[in-house]
Amino acid sequence: MNLTVTDVRLTPILVADPPLLNTQGVHQPYTPRLIVEVVTADGITGVGETYGDTKYLELARPIAARLPGRPVSDLNGLFTVADEVAVDASRVSGRVDVGGLRGVQTADKLRLSVVSGFEVACLDALGQSLGLPVHALLGGKVRDTVEYSAYLFYKWARHPEGVPGEPDDWGAALDPAGVVEQARRFTERYGFTSYKLKGGVFPPQEEIAAVRALAEAFPGRPLRLDPNGAWSVETSLKVAAELGDVLEYLEDPALGTPAMAEVAARTGVPLATNMCVTTFAEIEEAFTRGAVQVVLSDHHYWGGLRNTQHLAAVCRTFGVGVSMHSNTHLGISLAAMTHVASTVPGLHHACDSHYPWQSEDVLTERIAFHGGKVAVSDAPGLGVRLDSDRLAALHRRWLEDDGTYRDRDDTAAMRAADPAWTAPAVPRW
Amino acid sequence: MNLTVTDVRLTPILVADPPLLNTQGVHQPYTPRLIVEVVTADGITGVGETYGDTKYLELARPIAARLPGRPVSDLNGLFTVADEVAVDASRVSGRVDVGGLRGVQTADKLRLSVVSGFEVACLDALGQSLGLPVHALLGGKVRDTVEYSAYLFYKWARHPEGVPGEPDDWGAALDPAGVVEQARRFTERYGFTSYKLKGGVFPPQEEIAAVRALAEAFPGRPLRLDPNGAWSVETSLKVAAELGDVLEYLEDPALGTPAMAEVAARTGVPLATNMCVTTFAEIEEAFTRGAVQVVLSDHHYWGGLRNTQHLAAVCRTFGVGVSMHSNTHLGISLAAMTHVASTVPGLHHACDSHYPWQSEDVLTERIAFHGGKVAVSDAPGLGVRLDSDRLAALHRRWLEDDGTYRDRDDTAAMRAADPAWTAPAVPRW
Repeated sequence: MNLTVTDVRLTPILVADPPLLNTQGVHQPYTPRLIVEVVTADGITGVGETYGDTKYLELARPIAARLPGRPVSDLNGLFTVADEVAVDASRVSGRVDVGGLRGVQTADKLRLSVVSGFEVACLDALGQSLGLPVHALLGGKVRDTVEYSAYLFYKWARHPEGVPGEPDDWGAALDPAGVVEQARRFTERYGFTSYKLKGGVFPPQEEIAAVRALAEAFPGRPLRLDPNGAWSVETSLKVAAELGDVLEYLEDPALGTPAMAEVAARTGVPLATNMCVTTFAEIEEAFTRGAVQVVLSDHHYWGGLRNTQHLAAVCRTFGVGVSMHSNTHLGISLAAMTHVASTVPGLHHACDSHYPWQSEDVLTERIAFHGGKVAVSDAPGLGVRLDSDRLAALHRRWLEDDGTYRDRDDTAAMRAADPAWTAPAVPRW
Repeated sequence: MNLTVTDVRLTPILVADPPLLNTQGVHQPYTPRLIVEVVTADGITGVGETYGDTKYLELARPIAARLPGRPVSDLNGLFTVADEVAVDASRVSGRVDVGGLRGVQTADKLRLSVVSGFEVACLDALGQSLGLPVHALLGGKVRDTVEYSAYLFYKWARHPEGVPGEPDDWGAALDPAGVVEQARRFTERYGFTSYKLKGGVFPPQEEIAAVRALAEAFPGRPLRLDPNGAWSVETSLKVAAELGDVLEYLEDPALGTPAMAEVAARTGVPLATNMCVTTFAEIEEAFTRGAVQVVLSDHHYWGGLRNTQHLAAVCRTFGVGVSMHSNTHLGISLAAMTHVASTVPGLHHACDSHYPWQSEDVLTERIAFHGGKVAVSDAPGLGVRLDSDRLAALHRRWLEDDGTYRDRDDTAAMRAADPAWTAPAVPRW
């Protein structure tokens, strides 16, 4: 057995994305992802996936160039390698990522987001080499399935006139009835038993009405509302008061730790976040101030699956809950999320996943939800197989793109429908 | 490859220990350790080591009985198994361990201390099965050697009259000159370049004089003093003021988080601990109050090597330093400490080890210090080999013991020299 990395392939792709609304605007018809393949001397290929915007790509290339010759088992070394690569300051300074949807932007976080793609690919290759599933490389699963929630979005029926894009069969969801209808289809298709609504799109009363409608349609089921920090403290408290009896938690009602701490101090509704705590550096202030009760780990932000386990240990130590966050992602990342989530003790909340919204994937076989859960694979590695034809086709789309979709920009996408649109000032309500 | 556990062997042993003094009393001539062997279906044997007092043994037996049939890779499952085993409340309630030298005593901590022996044995077996060193199973070493400090003790030349025990060639160390002489021999034999003195034995002025003498003999070298919580806040501050210019840190000058927090607030000398933070449950208060600047992980207390990595992640997140603590231990635990310490980023302090004091071991080859460092083994597993004859001989000593030494009791040992001795009230000075 030779675990030496001999080749690394980076394949940027564009994946179809439906017109899902959020407080920044709307999803573009295509979203960039980066597929990482790490090949060992024995000819084993491991796959990983991460954000594919240009700044991630720029950083992934020099890291990839440093990996051949290193053992695929040297996961800690990936951080050392990444630290050696300079990050273009213009990609970072003073900016938040995708209008803040991915939280603070720092050079370290960019590095970690890229490392995660390599870490997952290395774990997949290592697991295949050793004949062990990724969860076993993470200390072993403590559950056989991982629960996900239905990730509901306000949504147009189709992308704006004149914009390219793939059709979807979900229809529009722009009011309580539409949201409930979407939730019903999620339930029928995937068996989800908890529901998260991406909010911050309409005035709070409309979103409160949508959550109330969900509570009536699915009595007793855990519900969540996530306006991506669109509300003031007072608005957050008003929503918490009105929905406190049906909410499992409110996710990022207000922007930033001070505002979240103020909300938390004045409501009994737990607050979750993937915006004010997205790096280890943000934890101390947030935990000390009691600003958040659940941290949603995006394993890409946090630097991979082992760092997600570390985050879970930090949360456990401070009595803070942990679950998993999702941005648009494909099956590789869903498999990675499932492996790590299966190893985390005390995972008391269903994880988020956009996967049902992605009609396209790069796997030979889509990952299935049964009863809202994904079975933890015991096959060696991640237990997924790359479809090279699909990968090539989605890469071709990226190659042929004139740059419009290579960097996710929900605000620009909204301007296709509303030329006067600018990212709303925060708090929006 | 078949990773199923087919057999687990537990071997309690008694190991010779020199008459090392601490605030509780003196080391007994023999100290109990438990050697764990985990055998897989392929006939591979992994070894682990942990505390061997009766209460650990009582808990290790039912855990061992549950392991056959489980995969040796299921490290997370060890915690689940341990949680299923009841801990005899009389072993725990209201007591601290070995006069507080091991910190708080809880059922969970007892379980974790036992789990650590199994975890290390499983990692050793898994590494041998896969052809990977233990550090690679922990994500890979980030350094090729791990630095240890000289662990200096006030010491008698021999155990008290009428007490059995093995002779040692270190002689007495009961004053500054004796301590410096001991440090010189440590330096000559092992190349250590930092020094820790176990204090709390003599009035603070004598120990201050000893540290001053060390500072003169080894100018510029990192020095530490550890009175095991024997001092009041005021005494701690006085020592900190007098030795602040030469101390790397003070270890547990005062007992418990409130006292440590008060000391920390009033001195610039960093405080280290292995007494007030010995469990994850103790972290929040200690970190929030700024009570400690360095946590010394005893991987036995904390539940093994992966939990030590988690502890390191928690410390890193809160800007608290981390290093490793030692009680009397043998080469298996030194190997385990070296593997995990090699994987922890930001390990800025040399680790502690009693190993030089242990003339007896159960390995075919002793682990060597060069320049005060232990080389990280790249051999499969821990990279050590059990000497079954030595193991049998030390087990025979345990079998033949009438119970005097099966539970470590430094206070009782001191009574052999001073029949009126009782554990000093805290603070002692």
